[in-house]
Amino acid sequence: MATIFSETLSRPTAFGELMQIMSLDQAHAIATSKKPGTRTTKEESETMRRPRSTQILYLVIGLLLVFAVVSACGQAEGSDQAASVDLGEEIDAIVQERGLTPDDISAALQTYMPSGEHDDYIMFASGGQSGQVLVIGMPSMRLLKVIAVFTPEPWQGYGYGAEGTMEVLAGGQVSGQDVLWGDTHHPAISETEGDYDGQFLFINDKANGRVAVIDLRDFETKQILKNPIAVNDHGGTMVTPNTEWVIEGGQYAAPLGWEYSSLDNYAEDYRGMITFWKFDRESGRIQYDESFAMELPPYWQDLCDAGKLVSDGWVFCGSFNTELATGGVEDGNPPFEAGASQRDMDYLHIINLERAAEVAQAGGTIEVNGFNVIPLDVIVEEGLLYLAPEPKSPHGADVTPNGEYIVVSGKLDPHVTVYSFTKIQEAIAAGGFETDDYGVPILDFDSVLEAQVEVGLGPLHTQFDNQGYAYTSLFLDSAVARWTLGGDFSDLHPEEDWTLVDKLNVHYNIGHLVAAEGDTVSPDGRYLVALNKWAVDRFANVGPLLPQNFQLINIDNQGENMQLLYDMPIGIGEPHYAQVIAADKLSAWEVYPEVGWDPHTQSLHPDATNLGEERIERNGNTVEIWMTAVRSHFTPEHVEIEEGDHIIWHITNVERAYDSTHGFSLPGYNINLSIEPGETITFEFDADFAGVYSYYCSEFCSALHLEMTGYLLIQP
Amino acid sequence: MATIFSETLSRPTAFGELMQIMSLDQAHAIATSKKPGTRTTKEESETMRRPRSTQILYLVIGLLLVFAVVSACGQAEGSDQAASVDLGEEIDAIVQERGLTPDDISAALQTYMPSGEHDDYIMFASGGQSGQVLVIGMPSMRLLKVIAVFTPEPWQGYGYGAEGTMEVLAGGQVSGQDVLWGDTHHPAISETEGDYDGQFLFINDKANGRVAVIDLRDFETKQILKNPIAVNDHGGTMVTPNTEWVIEGGQYAAPLGWEYSSLDNYAEDYRGMITFWKFDRESGRIQYDESFAMELPPYWQDLCDAGKLVSDGWVFCGSFNTELATGGVEDGNPPFEAGASQRDMDYLHIINLERAAEVAQAGGTIEVNGFNVIPLDVIVEEGLLYLAPEPKSPHGADVTPNGEYIVVSGKLDPHVTVYSFTKIQEAIAAGGFETDDYGVPILDFDSVLEAQVEVGLGPLHTQFDNQGYAYTSLFLDSAVARWTLGGDFSDLHPEEDWTLVDKLNVHYNIGHLVAAEGDTVSPDGRYLVALNKWAVDRFANVGPLLPQNFQLINIDNQGENMQLLYDMPIGIGEPHYAQVIAADKLSAWEVYPEVGWDPHTQSLHPDATNLGEERIERNGNTVEIWMTAVRSHFTPEHVEIEEGDHIIWHITNVERAYDSTHGFSLPGYNINLSIEPGETITFEFDADFAGVYSYYCSEFCSALHLEMTGYLLIQP
Repeated sequence: MATIFSETLSRPTAFGELMQIMSLDQAHAIATSKKPGTRTTKEESETMRRPRSTQILYLVIGLLLVFAVVSACGQAEGSDQAASVDLGEEIDAIVQERGLTPDDISAALQTYMPSGEHDDYIMFASGGQSGQVLVIGMPSMRLLKVIAVFTPEPWQGYGYGAEGTMEVLAGGQVSGQDVLWGDTHHPAISETEGDYDGQFLFINDKANGRVAVIDLRDFETKQILKNPIAVNDHGGTMVTPNTEWVIEGGQYAAPLGWEYSSLDNYAEDYRGMITFWKFDRESGRIQYDESFAMELPPYWQDLCDAGKLVSDGWVFCGSFNTELATGGVEDGNPPFEAGASQRDMDYLHIINLERAAEVAQAGGTIEVNGFNVIPLDVIVEEGLLYLAPEPKSPHGADVTPNGEYIVVSGKLDPHVTVYSFTKIQEAIAAGGFETDDYGVPILDFDSVLEAQVEVGLGPLHTQFDNQGYAYTSLFLDSAVARWTLGGDFSDLHPEEDWTLVDKLNVHYNIGHLVAAEGDTVSPDGRYLVALNKWAVDRFANVGPLLPQNFQLINIDNQGENMQLLYDMPIGIGEPHYAQVIAADKLSAWEVYPEVGWDPHTQSLHPDATNLGEERIERNGNTVEIWMTAVRSHFTPEHVEIEEGDHIIWHITNVERAYDSTHGFSLPGYNINLSIEPGETITFEFDADFAGVYSYYCSEFCSALHLEMTGYLLIQP
Repeated sequence: MATIFSETLSRPTAFGELMQIMSLDQAHAIATSKKPGTRTTKEESETMRRPRSTQILYLVIGLLLVFAVVSACGQAEGSDQAASVDLGEEIDAIVQERGLTPDDISAALQTYMPSGEHDDYIMFASGGQSGQVLVIGMPSMRLLKVIAVFTPEPWQGYGYGAEGTMEVLAGGQVSGQDVLWGDTHHPAISETEGDYDGQFLFINDKANGRVAVIDLRDFETKQILKNPIAVNDHGGTMVTPNTEWVIEGGQYAAPLGWEYSSLDNYAEDYRGMITFWKFDRESGRIQYDESFAMELPPYWQDLCDAGKLVSDGWVFCGSFNTELATGGVEDGNPPFEAGASQRDMDYLHIINLERAAEVAQAGGTIEVNGFNVIPLDVIVEEGLLYLAPEPKSPHGADVTPNGEYIVVSGKLDPHVTVYSFTKIQEAIAAGGFETDDYGVPILDFDSVLEAQVEVGLGPLHTQFDNQGYAYTSLFLDSAVARWTLGGDFSDLHPEEDWTLVDKLNVHYNIGHLVAAEGDTVSPDGRYLVALNKWAVDRFANVGPLLPQNFQLINIDNQGENMQLLYDMPIGIGEPHYAQVIAADKLSAWEVYPEVGWDPHTQSLHPDATNLGEERIERNGNTVEIWMTAVRSHFTPEHVEIEEGDHIIWHITNVERAYDSTHGFSLPGYNINLSIEPGETITFEFDADFAGVYSYYCSEFCSALHLEMTGYLLIQP
């Protein structure tokens, strides 16, 4: 049988053959002057796979396509003509066979991303009840990554043994119990002077009233905090223009600290809230002790937005159920959806954050579960909160890029209502207010109103572009409304101020929408995404639980020209809000800065292990292991312990090549790690079950990946 | 302020307004003769949003595009000319600005899916260490859904309280402990007469040696089984041509039942295995007691494939580490990747499944952890297993569509090796074998060899099309090899039999590949997907943990014409294998058959609750709740219990409209449900923490979705 191999391999030993193949691998990589494993670039590979004749043909065709399309014809001769016909027939055949319209062709060419080309924008979308964050490239609308936040996720080794991730998840415990999922709603990219800076991402968990911090150097969750005064939330997260504060607004009123009190005491005992989390860039963590909350009336606060530029230092939140409905349809009360919709007006909450921070700093707080809370009486006394009437069960309260206008969408009113910050300040200065039952001043509606624009049924949320347009999602119409802003924005668009310009149908039941850099002081325009809640007939049937539908829209134009480009199914949770940042503002690490890096502390791990330093030490019934991982073996390959031992296990991935991640899977013990290049991970467990366990690399790393394994032997 | 509304709304009460808006909503839906919520079709919406003039322009343009492309020019006049130029300039501007090549344009138009158009094929891909299954539409390569299998997933309400899902996950316990993740490798679609029937999907968990059953009526996981004799696996799942058996092959040898034994006893005590799970379509479950395993020599069995047609009743598995290397690089032994690569040949395992089933049926088994296992001596005695030499550390063993050839890829040999089933049968009949150290007969290599084809470095896995071509993934070359089959397939292709025809570079380090219906007796060809392990430079940087890269390839041609169409990032786990089925073979339910359906039993739930039947009953300290969910309220809206009560809670979603799913989130108690139209779910918990908890619908269901909430009051 040796003859089979004499043709192909001449090394004396099989190990030699292995080395030969591996070195071919290396040589190939070096030849293309890349790190091992990176292989050829797209250009190189395109060149390789096309015979030269075809390349020339394509060159000719490329030129001819332009001729043909601009109708400058009759000039092509002989083989050129043939070539033109060839390509024409190919393209034409595809267009005919697939029944593509001119709009489809345009959309396809605007969204298709050739192999190796990178998207212009990155969208961070909440993952809704998945508890995660979705990272999506635009305009291709490809899901680049799911970042594990509130829900354990084994591919990332998040919550399956790795010490740092277990600590992060433990931070999210409620009443001392693990809560291993979340309902993520509103991601917020960190800002510098009102522009996204791409350093951190924040997101809330509506279901359990929690906020999380993600470090965009490695796209990993570093911190989860439970809100100590509210069991759930909604109007978060948003950040102030320099990310000093991460805002978490409330939703369903409950007694502070969600302590028991009968619904009969709703008006007296139940409260709304808003929490301001102090963020420290240096440590990349929220500072719990420097954070504070405000006790609010038991209205259901909804979305908030931070002021910017002229309104910097102020925060604006919508609210509903100012009716104080408590439901109980089973007892003949109006159901919540009717009871909370009776009044023509709810209240826009206008909060003086700068002053509130001073009051909290000066000790004007009470303690609730050990957390600083400014009580309502102090809020009223210090003038930290004003209310303005807003029609009608609003969802979004969105601040324009110049900080001057606050746009409110009353979901049961066909208008968007625009408030002027200048007029709000004048009204506050003028004084002489009515107050609500809690003594909070109510500004006169007409005195703070700038404009109302009739946009359609079910307006929810508004975004902005760079051409003086605002875009409002219409849930009941299943449409996006484009309308004009006035004031500073008047000169940017040809149409009259404060008027509806265009409506585009979406599919279906849009919730939020997001524009490129749409929450900053300088939006980019170009693209808008409709975050649709229902998909119905848009995609192939995948059972009774359907995906949602993100629709990419081209807004890089004016007037009645919004163009639907792409339908992206989201079969992984129900996103609520998203933010979109220019890709070149992100600069994540390709590999960790040094071998032995601890991503939890973003510094060297005390148990970092280099090649040759691997060891196993026993101390009583505690066994500590220092292991390395490199293509393609773990050292040590044998670990022998005894049933009942406590194991402390450190693994360092000593690789420096981009993408050379190793996994570590241990059967039966619910342990899986993702160890990125340079990373050191520690995990601990009790060896309660004797037997033979094969640990192995769970991230395909080389041709001999399946051989990257070892035996854990646990003696009875 | 009333004046503001007199312009827009004339209903006497706010509740009236609400009803008006809702009824507009309904009316709109009815007008488009769809279920409420379905809204306009794509065609309708396209029409609505385009002014008539633009439509006419497009019609003209549509015609002209064809003229232009087939170079039939000079005929267009006046406004037509202008129109043509308009479109020409738009398309040309996009092509120029984005630097698209003719190949890119072709690929874009082949893969773009206009809004509302459905994909032709559905790919079920393993989710690797995510523990899940990915559902992907082809050719658009859009992720339609992630099916939760081994890992709890809150969007689907899988493992967060819902009784049926908790039972499924408990079935996967190891040593009585929860293992809440998996390393899914090889999905298998159920087959009828060797063709995918789209009824069920099976998948294994390599890390913990488990198999799962997914019901494709609702795309939900119904069963997880722990393999009782092996702690991990690899060569599964594959099914026999009529899905009588689900195959789970082994990987790393260990004593049966993974009981402790020193590695010094490797040859005597350690064993490989293969398990045949008996599947019952009626119940949609694997029948544990009718299943059995075979004790195999301690080689590391790798991928398996079931015979079909002529080879029906037989199973073929590759293997490596026939060297019996046990590693221990830290003690100066060769590392596994070298130790397991020393021999020129490993062994293809040829298993007579039909006969083995008879032997198991007849009681020729021993019990290991209460499971039927045919011991090695019986296997030898009964002639259930033959070995054939195979070069060299093979990965794939793939049976051709006619069942006659078995293609083996020795990952350290540049050839694929093709075995003839006819020759195997002749060799078995001829007898007179050598045996391995365990007495298993070894067939003479040359006597069973049909052909060897040199394809390149690192061949791993092979798929087939409808034109007589085979496609082999080349890990080290980062390429796909197209080569010709002989025998029955000879007439289907113009090239010589058993020869390499084309190689296409992929990006990078391809593991498996999959062709449309590529594992059936009648593959479709058309599309091939390269499941690449490394992405490196293909996508925008999202940190040290990179996505994988699925590349769609057009194989609907012959010769040197494979065309790379699309790069799909997989940032959600590392898929290993996938299968692709024609979309029209799937017929999942849009909503559950009846109100009160239990998806776990696929029958009516005993606690199904209709509108008006809602109630709360106390029995000692057990409180039982029967609740309904409908847009937009839960009934009851108040639940008052006492600290320490045990709660049994049933919720029925009485909706019948497609896509009208409701979620149910309960703060602090780690409970989240997805209740699809018609579904009834039961969950239980102990009310250990007093307080006020707002439960709410976590699936955005209407304009008043935020009002779909209620209060759980737990008295101290």
